[in-house]
Amino acid sequence: MKSLKLLGLSAIVAVTALTGCKPKGTETAVSGDAAQKVYVAPGKYDEFYNFVSGGFNGQVNVYGLPSGRLLKVLPVFSVNPENGYGYSEETKPMLETSHGFIPWDDQHHLSLSQTNAEVDGRWLFANANNTPRVARIDLKTFKTVEILELPNSAGNHSSPFLTENTEYVVAGTRFAVPTDDANGDVPIDSFKENFKGVLSFIGIDQQTGGMDLSFQIEAPGINFDLSHAGKKKSGDWFFFSCYNSEKANTLLEVNASQNDKDFIMAVNWKKAAELVKAGKGRKVTTEYAHNKWDESTHSATSTMKKEVVVLSVEDMKDAMFMIPCPKSPHGCDVDPTGEYIIGSGKLAALIPVFSFDKMIKAIADKNFAGEYDGVQVIKYEAALHGEVQKPGLGPLHTEFDGKGNAYTSMFVSSEVVKWNIKDLKVLDRQPTFYSVGHLMIPGGDSGKPFGKYLVAYNKITKDRYLPTGPELAQSAQLYDISGDKMKLLLDFPTFGEPHYAQALPGDMISKNQVKFFKIADNKHPYATKGEAESKVVREGNKVHVYMTSIRSHFAPDNIEGIRVGDEVYFHVTNLEQDWDVPHGFATKGNQNAELLIMPGETCTLKWVPKKPGMYPMYCTDFCSALHQEMQGYVRVSPAGSNTPLIYSLNNKKDNAQSPVKQGETK
Amino acid sequence: MKSLKLLGLSAIVAVTALTGCKPKGTETAVSGDAAQKVYVAPGKYDEFYNFVSGGFNGQVNVYGLPSGRLLKVLPVFSVNPENGYGYSEETKPMLETSHGFIPWDDQHHLSLSQTNAEVDGRWLFANANNTPRVARIDLKTFKTVEILELPNSAGNHSSPFLTENTEYVVAGTRFAVPTDDANGDVPIDSFKENFKGVLSFIGIDQQTGGMDLSFQIEAPGINFDLSHAGKKKSGDWFFFSCYNSEKANTLLEVNASQNDKDFIMAVNWKKAAELVKAGKGRKVTTEYAHNKWDESTHSATSTMKKEVVVLSVEDMKDAMFMIPCPKSPHGCDVDPTGEYIIGSGKLAALIPVFSFDKMIKAIADKNFAGEYDGVQVIKYEAALHGEVQKPGLGPLHTEFDGKGNAYTSMFVSSEVVKWNIKDLKVLDRQPTFYSVGHLMIPGGDSGKPFGKYLVAYNKITKDRYLPTGPELAQSAQLYDISGDKMKLLLDFPTFGEPHYAQALPGDMISKNQVKFFKIADNKHPYATKGEAESKVVREGNKVHVYMTSIRSHFAPDNIEGIRVGDEVYFHVTNLEQDWDVPHGFATKGNQNAELLIMPGETCTLKWVPKKPGMYPMYCTDFCSALHQEMQGYVRVSPAGSNTPLIYSLNNKKDNAQSPVKQGETK
Repeated sequence: MKSLKLLGLSAIVAVTALTGCKPKGTETAVSGDAAQKVYVAPGKYDEFYNFVSGGFNGQVNVYGLPSGRLLKVLPVFSVNPENGYGYSEETKPMLETSHGFIPWDDQHHLSLSQTNAEVDGRWLFANANNTPRVARIDLKTFKTVEILELPNSAGNHSSPFLTENTEYVVAGTRFAVPTDDANGDVPIDSFKENFKGVLSFIGIDQQTGGMDLSFQIEAPGINFDLSHAGKKKSGDWFFFSCYNSEKANTLLEVNASQNDKDFIMAVNWKKAAELVKAGKGRKVTTEYAHNKWDESTHSATSTMKKEVVVLSVEDMKDAMFMIPCPKSPHGCDVDPTGEYIIGSGKLAALIPVFSFDKMIKAIADKNFAGEYDGVQVIKYEAALHGEVQKPGLGPLHTEFDGKGNAYTSMFVSSEVVKWNIKDLKVLDRQPTFYSVGHLMIPGGDSGKPFGKYLVAYNKITKDRYLPTGPELAQSAQLYDISGDKMKLLLDFPTFGEPHYAQALPGDMISKNQVKFFKIADNKHPYATKGEAESKVVREGNKVHVYMTSIRSHFAPDNIEGIRVGDEVYFHVTNLEQDWDVPHGFATKGNQNAELLIMPGETCTLKWVPKKPGMYPMYCTDFCSALHQEMQGYVRVSPAGSNTPLIYSLNNKKDNAQSPVKQGETK
Repeated sequence: MKSLKLLGLSAIVAVTALTGCKPKGTETAVSGDAAQKVYVAPGKYDEFYNFVSGGFNGQVNVYGLPSGRLLKVLPVFSVNPENGYGYSEETKPMLETSHGFIPWDDQHHLSLSQTNAEVDGRWLFANANNTPRVARIDLKTFKTVEILELPNSAGNHSSPFLTENTEYVVAGTRFAVPTDDANGDVPIDSFKENFKGVLSFIGIDQQTGGMDLSFQIEAPGINFDLSHAGKKKSGDWFFFSCYNSEKANTLLEVNASQNDKDFIMAVNWKKAAELVKAGKGRKVTTEYAHNKWDESTHSATSTMKKEVVVLSVEDMKDAMFMIPCPKSPHGCDVDPTGEYIIGSGKLAALIPVFSFDKMIKAIADKNFAGEYDGVQVIKYEAALHGEVQKPGLGPLHTEFDGKGNAYTSMFVSSEVVKWNIKDLKVLDRQPTFYSVGHLMIPGGDSGKPFGKYLVAYNKITKDRYLPTGPELAQSAQLYDISGDKMKLLLDFPTFGEPHYAQALPGDMISKNQVKFFKIADNKHPYATKGEAESKVVREGNKVHVYMTSIRSHFAPDNIEGIRVGDEVYFHVTNLEQDWDVPHGFATKGNQNAELLIMPGETCTLKWVPKKPGMYPMYCTDFCSALHQEMQGYVRVSPAGSNTPLIYSLNNKKDNAQSPVKQGETK
């Protein structure tokens, strides 16, 4: 084994590359057929869905590849006034936490569900980094259907990585904190005594996808950055990259960059689960929200959970080990065979590749170099398959093409480097514009990559697009990797800040799509399944409007007798039963967003009118040739007024059978 | 003149085309070089900025043409947790209204500022349809810098159309309401007596772009749908399409589709302004918010205004006329010469083209057919240039190429139709996929269109992209119009719901970009212009953190002595002075969004911690190779605790010159 030689890279990074180097010649040669390769003709579908984490927009952005077209912004952790997510009464519970309702988060990584280490197109898991949570998205409806908060954690960065049969989602703590949230009021300089890095293991119901916080491991107070599960022979293990082994709590850019090696931590999750089953671990009282979407009621519920089982380092002594890894490792990636674990030390001048077989042998042989906070540290050379020499500067992440090659992003030297996993030889390098963070090959972290394309998600944009003031979109770049050399095809802008992304062939998902909801199956307690059932009911100062929408009117569309001080709930059921016929709903002056109601769905908009007046309501989504006519009025009288509660559709005073109806008062 | 013959189109529309017809063969022939024509190679810029209204997302979306790439989502009327718009203390005032803070609106139309009837690239105006407002965006910074609320109005749809030298922005009421907002508590069936359609005229400061509600006209209670100013010889006039001349207040899809003709209303804005100057009009007490962004303080203010001058129909008797227009007109478009006014009756089987010269002559000759609510109605034939026969079904909007041709979108027959303005002959028709609403040619509503491309903004998407559940993006289509026949080049998805859009050549804007803010010019009251000035100040239960950010740390990064019940204000100044180096800021558990702070800017995030604990804060925007290290901690103690208020960066207890500092208490 080669001895590790670090090149004082901290200094290089600090001086030359704080925002990454700009490669010479910003217009790389693009092959002549690039235009044809990325062009998806009108009426044709893209080949791949590309799910891209939204970073600081908190959502998941869905792109088509190879066109780079943004197909959908899928609301997950941030409110979305566009469709009422986080504003409708039904969706508000999705964003509840132990800190109350939170309108935003930082969405970093994604994992598509897997079966036998292959992506299966059922669910997508997404993490929230700021207030630790994991979400599950149903790929039949492209809706967020579950969000689970994680107690005892902070900076939920090494998440939501999955085991090869979607048994567990893992979530590791990046910002060590006092373990029990309730005990957090301690001096910050007691960091080394009091702060821990908790790893959460979320069990997944194999049939429903439902999440449950099965157990946590109270690991040393180090920063857990990224993770991946093993696969095939290494399938019982999770691997985590760990930086700040110095346990600095201030000015980390200096104080957490001192040690030449930090760690990859290996955790046998199957043994951990067995330990919990056998009664190990302590029950910790805490609180964390568990929010679930029910498609039959088209509504979410939020439940506050109170307890979690926590395993200690001592409990895990035969199931948790550390491997030294140069320097401040970021990505932690496992090749398709499950044999090779790559730790990308962002301040290292080489890439270490560890061997799972060697790791197991080292554990069996007790080939340890000592302990770190009670965790056995395997000798570096004992677990090392080898090192990629001179790969570039600032290695971050590695993906795989399934043909024995690895592709590593180099933030500082701003390039993607292709190398052979077995012989560790560099095969190709292509510049990125600029400063690539994550990269993605369809299926590229699974046991069976689809290959063909590689996307670089870059951190610096500057001159790549027509400028838009001080604030710019991020930039992605698409490469063709079907040949020996990578070929740059396309630049496309991305939103929020993409971190990890995943992709899979279109037909794995498109064939399973729910196009609308059956009105007969609607179990919403305020559903109105026909215009004849529409009504207005007063209960004290609460007024419930049971309303329907169909091209091109609401029923009722004239309402009187609302008073200042009322809380009005418009429960709007969209009676349409076809694809792509949503109706929108809004009222003037409402301190709220709109509703965007899918066919067959019921959504509720709360309105607390502030002053008397005449308030139009209307359909906000162009639905037919007579969409502009889809409007109505609500009359608001002063508090305490006697204006009768009436409602109507197509009121004609000269008609003996007047359809003006008296509202109910309960 | 031909007599108008309507074809009972309401019935046709109702039966066959509620969502528009689907043209046969969804994959139109695309010319062989389409891929090359839309491909913008990596490192190259798009040719045009395309500003596309966000519709029910409330924002303005900026695309590049011909690539169709989304370059920016520019926050205007909806909160944007992604960059803190509507969440930071500085931006909250931008969304204040007379109804309080509103987090959403429906953004329908856009107008680029003009000089001599040509777009000049200075500002972009955008309307809010739901709670009537007009916004101004500065195209040097791509920021919303002003929002003006409009009283006495509802459904601000025929807005924000501009005069040819940006003297006025107009805003007409789509949903008639009782004129004075405060008198709105009247029976809805008193519609014909009490409801009016107010037109607002917003004066623009020619140097600063600043808006002022100069006056309003209390017009008949009809639905003002769309508008355009005249230009050149007709430059003193505004033209409005008016539907619901029946004055229906319920089931409008039937009751507002009875009359064979509705109206185009012509308003001489110059005469109206003179009338106001001469003391005409009554002063109406009302309230409306005027919100302004100040780039020197990086902060907004909101002022509540209390009065507006309103002109009556009687005041306007020599300056306001109606022209009959078949049937339920939607678009109202003026050709580049200013001579021809096109009213697109969405239920009409032809397109009427009116002549400005004829209209003026008819007024001079008093060639009137009667009055509508006191407004003189010009005889249809007297103002008519001619009719485009059999143009298609459901004409909505018309744009111009500057070569004597008009292009009209046909919602029901789902096509774009090209016709000659003078001889009214149809020259070409191309299907759209599906059901086109607005359409756009760069500069296509100005006196000098740039031509080359046409974009159709379609309402129905269905099978155009890989499906994403029940909720789909809208779809746009790009056509090459440089030849005699239109050629379809590209489909691209769009967000929210695009209504009107505008475009102009890239270099008209790109050359003027502000890339970062000079820290020396920062006049924010809580700006911290160097780390040495960072501090923490307690004022009762308010704690102000004067914080700086620079790659890759915050100063301070450790804070203790915060108590439950405190309101903590993080005033973060980004000390960077280069393009594309924002820093983000967030704290765990905050019921708020993040800050995204541009270089040289100061932004403030409020945090009211709910429970004691250890709360990490961190940079949310990957800023350097040591970005992951850009973090810190805030310790929160129980209410009433005595934990001292201290803060530090790089605290070393063993250093005699400890940098731990005592916070100030005022």
